[in-house]
Amino acid sequence: MLNVKTPEEVMEIISREFSPLDLSETVDISDSLGRVLSEDVKGNEYVPGFNRSSVDGYAIKAKDSFGCTESIPAILRLAAEVEMGKEFTETLPKASCVYVPTGGKVPDGADGVVMIEYTEKFSADEVAVIKPIAPGENLVYRGDDCKPGQSVAKAGTEVKAQHIGVFASLGIRSVSVAKKITVGIISTGDELVGIEETPGDGQVRDVNSYMLAALCRENGCEIVNYGFCRDDEQLLRSLVKKAVSECDMVLISGGSSVGQKDATARIIEEYGPLLFHGIAMKPGKPTIFGKYGNKPIVGLPGHPGASFFVSTIFVKPLISRLTGRADRDWAVTAKIKEAIPANQGRTVYIGVKLSCEGDVLYAAPVQSKSGLVSSLANSDAFVCVPRDCEGYAKGTEVKAYIF
Amino acid sequence: MLNVKTPEEVMEIISREFSPLDLSETVDISDSLGRVLSEDVKGNEYVPGFNRSSVDGYAIKAKDSFGCTESIPAILRLAAEVEMGKEFTETLPKASCVYVPTGGKVPDGADGVVMIEYTEKFSADEVAVIKPIAPGENLVYRGDDCKPGQSVAKAGTEVKAQHIGVFASLGIRSVSVAKKITVGIISTGDELVGIEETPGDGQVRDVNSYMLAALCRENGCEIVNYGFCRDDEQLLRSLVKKAVSECDMVLISGGSSVGQKDATARIIEEYGPLLFHGIAMKPGKPTIFGKYGNKPIVGLPGHPGASFFVSTIFVKPLISRLTGRADRDWAVTAKIKEAIPANQGRTVYIGVKLSCEGDVLYAAPVQSKSGLVSSLANSDAFVCVPRDCEGYAKGTEVKAYIF
Repeated sequence: MLNVKTPEEVMEIISREFSPLDLSETVDISDSLGRVLSEDVKGNEYVPGFNRSSVDGYAIKAKDSFGCTESIPAILRLAAEVEMGKEFTETLPKASCVYVPTGGKVPDGADGVVMIEYTEKFSADEVAVIKPIAPGENLVYRGDDCKPGQSVAKAGTEVKAQHIGVFASLGIRSVSVAKKITVGIISTGDELVGIEETPGDGQVRDVNSYMLAALCRENGCEIVNYGFCRDDEQLLRSLVKKAVSECDMVLISGGSSVGQKDATARIIEEYGPLLFHGIAMKPGKPTIFGKYGNKPIVGLPGHPGASFFVSTIFVKPLISRLTGRADRDWAVTAKIKEAIPANQGRTVYIGVKLSCEGDVLYAAPVQSKSGLVSSLANSDAFVCVPRDCEGYAKGTEVKAYIF
Repeated sequence: MLNVKTPEEVMEIISREFSPLDLSETVDISDSLGRVLSEDVKGNEYVPGFNRSSVDGYAIKAKDSFGCTESIPAILRLAAEVEMGKEFTETLPKASCVYVPTGGKVPDGADGVVMIEYTEKFSADEVAVIKPIAPGENLVYRGDDCKPGQSVAKAGTEVKAQHIGVFASLGIRSVSVAKKITVGIISTGDELVGIEETPGDGQVRDVNSYMLAALCRENGCEIVNYGFCRDDEQLLRSLVKKAVSECDMVLISGGSSVGQKDATARIIEEYGPLLFHGIAMKPGKPTIFGKYGNKPIVGLPGHPGASFFVSTIFVKPLISRLTGRADRDWAVTAKIKEAIPANQGRTVYIGVKLSCEGDVLYAAPVQSKSGLVSSLANSDAFVCVPRDCEGYAKGTEVKAYIF
């Protein structure tokens, strides 16, 4: 019998049996986009390094403006007009003001900035303020953005444009990121032909090599493609041996349903324990997980649709585990547009197309039989019907997991 | 006065004033990940090319199984056992069955497959079926996945792993994608220093060059970085001239608030109409859009936070417009974790961190003053408070736009 696990058990197995590779490299921040931080990035200075004005206006002591109005303005002495990149190095005297542009330094002694719109220049050295400000108004304090030692991006973060902005603002020119992991991909099956061929009856093109490679690339991996092999145990054994020695993870698609699965399972078992053989999910049941040390060896279903779901739901977290990546821990809530029928004791995964109508987010199930890819291509997300659930009625609010 | 537009008007201007570049190139499907399809991809064959079994079992005429039970099985003659990649070329005789593995061809005359679990092999040439099947059960019909001429991915689609799977399954080895557009980036401001420098008082590092480049790269663009330049109109004019001649779009950050904006606006206007000068949004008001033919020339705020929001909300759609990319047209619904206060007649954009608690998706506003990037780095999405809205109370359901 298959040693079948629930999806929840598979997630536990992934975190229990595998650990981050702990191989990192240092890259320029410009090359860090999409990479996974291997350690917390900490600032080591104050940002901004000075009290900064967030408007064009006059830096003042807020209390000098208290009570002023358009008819009874506060008249302040203009101590200086500071150009961008320059500064007023003295302490602001009482009843005085200094012009500062947006982003400019607010001098010591000033605790706020009146927008230029609420002032009037009376004379060469006198400014009338017609609206009072509160202390701190229009001012970004030194260290508001970051203080020395403060973590600004945690280990496990996948770097996006805004993180690169943060690093640049702190003068951090390079960061430590997890090394890209290498995934070896093998397709098996007597029915497979190359994608350039026209399949004869009973044959199908080798879709998984391409799709799995793209999915792993989307997740920041390097790929070694070992091509496809016939259902020949010795040949498969030698390909797996090569892949295991060259890669951090090996994906074998096909060869995992009744007719062919035994050879794949046997070969995986030669490297270490078979962690399980079968997931109580649909599509995707005939999935095998094994390991060689910390290297996952995964037998995926041959059906592209099933293979896609298993990869998205379990291979992606495996990649995250090996690279130390922190995955998105939220799903969105959407109203089901059509009933999703009850399942047969297995967790069912269904691709959905999301759309907004007014303020409501809808999820329309994409009709698909197991193995059909073209419908998947129209999905934005998937929903999951737990095995103890009898399906969802139209209009039910469900969680949708964005691809 | 500034010629200020609402965010909605800006979106209209983008689609009215600019059009897709219509430059495409043909790439291998393995290189198409993340690219934008420049034409519909159509299949030109039936997928599957034959009626395919989705289980290991016996292909039968469904009506031969009607009424059978465990105690009164239907006894069928085993006409053949088909290996993977082989086929049974005859038409299935009455009261007969043919063994087919998962993915194997279902012979003509059969209209369903009984799973092997619901059968028992009585003798070398007799199989007992203990559970009836409906016509079409466990069978994927020829052309179910695709018929000749059927569009499987529309022009404007950003190619993902599942699309590559579709292309492979159809034997499509290359696709036509929009050429990557080239974005020129210029930072301006006397206050700027390189990121390797320690800013003196009144100075800030040139964050935008790095952040904007990363954001455009995330959106599939090539970047030419023109570095940062002092507030010197002649120098800026010559940089813009170079950028406009070399790139498909030019972003000028800084130089767009009262002290410096005029030079940027004047230069942009030398190329064509100033489409607007100012967006009624916060952060991000001092934004300028111009055009030179079909090339957008955009003046962005100098504050990295403001610049990030404007780029995410308006530069990204500009890139989509030029490449013909169809953007996500849905947002998610989330409950606000903390009140977002009323605004001042401008649409307010606030970064939020999404999290699930039970079945509810929450959005926690990330506290941030204009221009502060480190808080943005913790956001997953943004929410928008329209200018005629007085803010959101804690617990309000709002739309969150995922970054």
